[in-house]
Amino acid sequence: MKKLINSADTVLAESLAGFAAAHADIVLADAEGRFVRRRALKRGKVALISGGGSGHEPLHAGFVGHGMLDAACPGQVFTSPTPDQMLAAAAAVDSGAGVLFIVKNYEGDVMNFEMAAEMASGQVATVVTNDDVAVEASTWSTGRRGVAGTLVVEKIVGAGAEAGLDLAALQELGVQVNAATRSIGVALTSCTVPAAGKPTFELGELEMEMGVGIHGEPGRRRVPLVPADSIAAEMTGAILADFGADFGADFGAEAGGEALLLINGFGATPLMELYLMYHAVRRQLTQAGVSVVRSLVGNYVTSLDMAGCSVTVTQLDAELLRLWDAPVQTAALRWGR
Amino acid sequence: MKKLINSADTVLAESLAGFAAAHADIVLADAEGRFVRRRALKRGKVALISGGGSGHEPLHAGFVGHGMLDAACPGQVFTSPTPDQMLAAAAAVDSGAGVLFIVKNYEGDVMNFEMAAEMASGQVATVVTNDDVAVEASTWSTGRRGVAGTLVVEKIVGAGAEAGLDLAALQELGVQVNAATRSIGVALTSCTVPAAGKPTFELGELEMEMGVGIHGEPGRRRVPLVPADSIAAEMTGAILADFGADFGADFGAEAGGEALLLINGFGATPLMELYLMYHAVRRQLTQAGVSVVRSLVGNYVTSLDMAGCSVTVTQLDAELLRLWDAPVQTAALRWGR
Repeated sequence: MKKLINSADTVLAESLAGFAAAHADIVLADAEGRFVRRRALKRGKVALISGGGSGHEPLHAGFVGHGMLDAACPGQVFTSPTPDQMLAAAAAVDSGAGVLFIVKNYEGDVMNFEMAAEMASGQVATVVTNDDVAVEASTWSTGRRGVAGTLVVEKIVGAGAEAGLDLAALQELGVQVNAATRSIGVALTSCTVPAAGKPTFELGELEMEMGVGIHGEPGRRRVPLVPADSIAAEMTGAILADFGADFGADFGAEAGGEALLLINGFGATPLMELYLMYHAVRRQLTQAGVSVVRSLVGNYVTSLDMAGCSVTVTQLDAELLRLWDAPVQTAALRWGR
Repeated sequence: MKKLINSADTVLAESLAGFAAAHADIVLADAEGRFVRRRALKRGKVALISGGGSGHEPLHAGFVGHGMLDAACPGQVFTSPTPDQMLAAAAAVDSGAGVLFIVKNYEGDVMNFEMAAEMASGQVATVVTNDDVAVEASTWSTGRRGVAGTLVVEKIVGAGAEAGLDLAALQELGVQVNAATRSIGVALTSCTVPAAGKPTFELGELEMEMGVGIHGEPGRRRVPLVPADSIAAEMTGAILADFGADFGADFGAEAGGEALLLINGFGATPLMELYLMYHAVRRQLTQAGVSVVRSLVGNYVTSLDMAGCSVTVTQLDAELLRLWDAPVQTAALRWGR
C-alpha cells in the first residue's frame, strides 16, 4: 500500500484537521471530530446534515457551507458515523426550524441516522438517496445504493433551505430530486482502504467492473476494458432505460427533456479522461433527445484511490434548475455569491 | 494501460471538446483546437496567454476566465504547443493592450513561446516560471522547472490585468510572484502517457521519487516510502532552505512572514491524503515562523495518473494577498464575483 499517511489509525483525524484549517473561512470542526459544521449559521433556516463513511471526499464535508449542508458527520473509512455524531451535529446547527438528514442508502448509515432521529430532541426528517441503477441490492445495501447523485440532492435541497422552505417541503424536495436522478459507475482499478492495507478487490490488467459501488462493491459484471465510447454507451443506456420506466415521455423535448450531467471521478482518474467521458456521454444523451443544460465534471464522490468514474443524470424542471443555479459557497462547490 | 479513452490519437481533441462543452458559459474552443479562450473579452485589458503540454489538467485551460487567463494553448500530452497556436490565441484575445505569455520553464515551451513572441504583430512580453526547487536542471529544462507555482502566477497576474495594470507592470508582477514562490513534488507512482502505453518510469512497491517533475522527470533521489510527516518535513525543509538564501529574515514575523500554501495532487492521490499532507506541512511551516494565511488543496497541476503531490509556498505581501483574493471565475478556480 502506497499512501501519504502516518498510520491507518490517524488518517481521518489528521485529514479532518487539515480540511478544517484549510477552509477555516467556511467551516468549523467539532473538537472531538464528530462533525464539521458551517462557521456562520442562519437563524430560522432548516439545518441540513449529511454524513457517511470517509474515503469519498470531498463528499460530505466539502459540501458544508452556504447553499448546501450545515454539517457533515464523517465515519471511519467506508464505515457509518455513529448516532452520537449526528446528535452532536444536530445540537450544534439546529436553530429551531428542524433538521433534515440526507442519508445514502447503506444499511449502517440508514440505521444510525434513524437512531439519531429517534433520539433527537428537535424535529427531524430524513431523505434517503438511492440513485445507483447498477444493482437492486448490494453488499451493504438493501435496495439501490446512494452514490454521486447525493451531491445533487444536497445542492438543490440546500438551495431550498436557504430560500426558506420548511422541513416538510425540503423533505419532499429531496425525495423529488432523488427520484429525478440516476447514476452508474465503472471501475478500472480497486481502491485500498488504509486499515486493510491491500486492494478491496482484484481486477485483471485489462478488466473493468461495470456498475461498481463507491466502496468497491461488485457491480453488474466484470468485463474486458473497451473504448470509452462503448463504456459511455452502456452507462448512458442503463440510465436512460431506468428513466424510461419512471418518466416515459418526460424525457422527450415536449415535457422536460433537460438534464444535469455529472461525470464524477472516483479519485485516481485524470481530468482529461473525465472530460473525454463527458464528451462521449453528452453526445449519446443528445442523440436520445436529452438536452444537457448544466454540467459538473470532477472528483466529487470518490472511492479513495479507485480509477474509474460514474455518470449521473438529473432531470431538471425550471424549479430544480433555479435551485441548482442558486449560489453555493463550500470547499468543493462554489458559484454565485 | 487502463484508461477511459477511445484511442491515444484522439484523447486530446475529445477531452477538449468535452471541456469546452461543459464550461461553455466561460470558454470557447478554437475550431481547430489551437487554443481555448474566454468567452467574454475585456477591451483595453492586457491579454494573458499560457499553455504547455496537455496531461496537467486543469492547468492551463481550467484557468481561463475572468480574473485569470484569456487563453490557453494545449499541446499534445507532455509536448509543447506550437508557435502557430500561440499566434492564433494572441490574434483572438489581444484587444490592443498587448499580450503577456506565462510560460513554464521547459526548453520546448520557452522556445516556441519565444518564436511566437517574435512573430506576433502586437506587443508581447513573457514571464517564465521556475518554482521547482528540487533540481537545478532536468530532462527538459535548463534551469529549474516550472510547476504548480505557475497557477499562483497566473492567478495573481490575472487579477493585476483585471485591475488595469499595463504590460510592463504585469510582466514585473509575474517575475515578482515567481520569485516569491517555491515548490517541490513527490511521486508514489509513475504516470502513463496514452501514446506510450506504459509507465514513464518504474518505482518499487515501497519506493517514492522525492523531487519528481510533473512529467515524471527524475527528482533528487529515489528512497523508501516513509510516513507523511517525514515526507512533509523533507519537502518543507527544501522550500524553506531555498527561501532562506533569497529572503532571509523576510520570512520572520517582522517582515512578511505570511504565505499561501498550496498542496497540489498529481492526479491519483485521494483528497484525504492531500488534506493530511496540508496538515503536516502547515504545522511545520508554523513552527518555522511562517504564517499560512491562504490555502489551496486539490488537483490543480497534475501529471495524468501519477500518485503523489507537490507543496508550493508563496510569500505574500499585502498587495499579493489582495490580488490573490480578487474574484476569479474559471472552470477550476472560483471565488468572489
